Amino acid sequence: MPDRRPVRYELLARCGKARRGRLHTPHGTIETPAFMPVGTRATLKGLTPDQLAETGSEIVLANTYHLMLRPGGPVIEALGGLHTFMSWDRPVLTDSGGFQVFSLAELRRMGEDGVVFRSHLDGARIELTPEVSIRVQNELGADIIMAFDECPPLPGTPREVADAVRRTIRWAQRCQVAHANPRQALYGIVQGGLDLDLRRECFEALAALDFDGYAIGGLSVGEPPPAMWGLLDAFADDLPAERARYLMGVGTPRDLVECVATGIDQFDCVLPTRNGRKSYAFTSEGPLRMRNARHKLDRGPLDPACDCYTCRRFSRGYLRHLFLTGEVLGASLLSLHNVRFYQTLMASIRRAIEEDRFAAWRQAFLRTPAAGASEESA
Amino acid sequence: MPDRRPVRYELLARCGKARRGRLHTPHGTIETPAFMPVGTRATLKGLTPDQLAETGSEIVLANTYHLMLRPGGPVIEALGGLHTFMSWDRPVLTDSGGFQVFSLAELRRMGEDGVVFRSHLDGARIELTPEVSIRVQNELGADIIMAFDECPPLPGTPREVADAVRRTIRWAQRCQVAHANPRQALYGIVQGGLDLDLRRECFEALAALDFDGYAIGGLSVGEPPPAMWGLLDAFADDLPAERARYLMGVGTPRDLVECVATGIDQFDCVLPTRNGRKSYAFTSEGPLRMRNARHKLDRGPLDPACDCYTCRRFSRGYLRHLFLTGEVLGASLLSLHNVRFYQTLMASIRRAIEEDRFAAWRQAFLRTPAAGASEESA
Repeated sequence: MPDRRPVRYELLARCGKARRGRLHTPHGTIETPAFMPVGTRATLKGLTPDQLAETGSEIVLANTYHLMLRPGGPVIEALGGLHTFMSWDRPVLTDSGGFQVFSLAELRRMGEDGVVFRSHLDGARIELTPEVSIRVQNELGADIIMAFDECPPLPGTPREVADAVRRTIRWAQRCQVAHANPRQALYGIVQGGLDLDLRRECFEALAALDFDGYAIGGLSVGEPPPAMWGLLDAFADDLPAERARYLMGVGTPRDLVECVATGIDQFDCVLPTRNGRKSYAFTSEGPLRMRNARHKLDRGPLDPACDCYTCRRFSRGYLRHLFLTGEVLGASLLSLHNVRFYQTLMASIRRAIEEDRFAAWRQAFLRTPAAGASEESA
Repeated sequence: MPDRRPVRYELLARCGKARRGRLHTPHGTIETPAFMPVGTRATLKGLTPDQLAETGSEIVLANTYHLMLRPGGPVIEALGGLHTFMSWDRPVLTDSGGFQVFSLAELRRMGEDGVVFRSHLDGARIELTPEVSIRVQNELGADIIMAFDECPPLPGTPREVADAVRRTIRWAQRCQVAHANPRQALYGIVQGGLDLDLRRECFEALAALDFDGYAIGGLSVGEPPPAMWGLLDAFADDLPAERARYLMGVGTPRDLVECVATGIDQFDCVLPTRNGRKSYAFTSEGPLRMRNARHKLDRGPLDPACDCYTCRRFSRGYLRHLFLTGEVLGASLLSLHNVRFYQTLMASIRRAIEEDRFAAWRQAFLRTPAAGASEESA
């Protein structure tokens, strides 16, 4: 029987646990391991879709929570769905809305059915359940959508984390039942905090439900990075090998390298764009803060090793001028560069795995200034 | 003897007083009548130089007042001059700084030598004289620079306007003496308020000094548009025919058409970009406010008659979403469209003059919705 899944993962090569693959979606193929920039409100802040494509990004993430509040799922559906809405005909992924409900909204009630919260915009009372999250994501029409999970409180007691895991499993099943569009892949989300046993319990139950892919949630939320790397090393490669593995909300350049080494295929993070807006640049020479006075008379490019529009066309002195005068072009140009920096890094990772030299490449990378934490993420 | 001027005006055709020409500059040729968008701080807000070029703009204006405060003329000179600084290898024009001193800064002293003001940024005491303005403009390195003029107080007594005219003439002469870069064209500025005799006195004195071009200042500052059109009709075509005529800070689409009819060759205005940032669009169907609820479910383009990136790629519904959520991409896309709208208008004007049908074209244009004032400029 042919695989009729909307999204299919193809493994091309392995090097240790690191995987080189392809994700085939209704809007095209994504080379993995892949970094997915975050277009929260159906736009990568300050960049056109053409500029986003120029960074080498093959898929973009949008946030269900923000879009369900404004303009609303039915409006985006009426305007042709997310791809048409944002004029991006390549793959799109939406999250479930859960993470933002817990981090941005005022929670009113939480129960087995779902959550009731007040919108952070106007205080409106809104109910978000597995069924509502899937309905909105069906309206949005992304290629890959996420099951609605419970993010356990941080730090949580073992009991709270265990309860969240079991509820996440029950909700995942309800999401499968609610999911009404066979052209959209549905990923289950593995929760369990830093508890390896709970993580295993969660992903085994989800694997039994046979999702189109598996996301790992609830990490990079304040724990030391080595704790995350260690935990992933203990279980990520035990996830079903024939499906993609997506580590949500991660991370720094070093995180990407360390987590690819544990067998992760997909990442998303606001770091390159958020840092870019704040004048922080990732470069091959290490992180830079472009407001710094030492760039004032610098005619050189932001990163001599980078091939992006920003680095080809503008001096550090000009970029500093844009930030000091509050010109939004600075944020756009630095976001564009930072995303390109991430995509160049992912391309290097993919090549190293293909050529069966990822372990050596990783050790060499960790000695470069580029592996340094940015001032914002340190 | 060959004309060694850095900028040379070539008259191609006339239709009534309207002139179709070319302005040859060190960084390329500008088709006239020309509209010059305003890149105040060496950037057209929210647009890359490539996006600016896509609008069909052939020359951009930058403001000496803003750039002398931040980052300063010597910094831009050290970074290669304005063209290199902003990565725009086509023509650039700078104003003298005078208009912003009078409108933005706290004036401390005004005399025959020049003005002393406090920076609107940090209160620093700064002196601006004809010599200083020219020195800064030499540092900036635009293709076309402006003499430092006195903008008479508004409304001014006849005496005040006459005094400002005579001082403007004396300062124009000092600017010629101070001007040290033969690769930059220097324009004189005609002042005189709404007084035709003073305007004539001013431009005749300036013409005797033989400038590379002639700007008209002190209009579109609150007087009724027909008063401006009438005044220009009475004298603009008496300016030296072999030089370009530049009407500063004008205007609405209708202003451009009416003033081309009086013999003007160059215009600049913040209207398309400022309105774009405020969600106002100029379209062939008349002005639109993109925050309006009626665009909510509109899948159609902003302007079906426009060929710009914004109109080719995005729906009115999406543009409204960007403005309602405060996403800066909305401002960029609308600025891009509005500038393209202006450039398309100028191309139509140029073609109508070439084909000797400008008078009829103008009458037809004035009956279209596109000639309507935008909500912002009305």
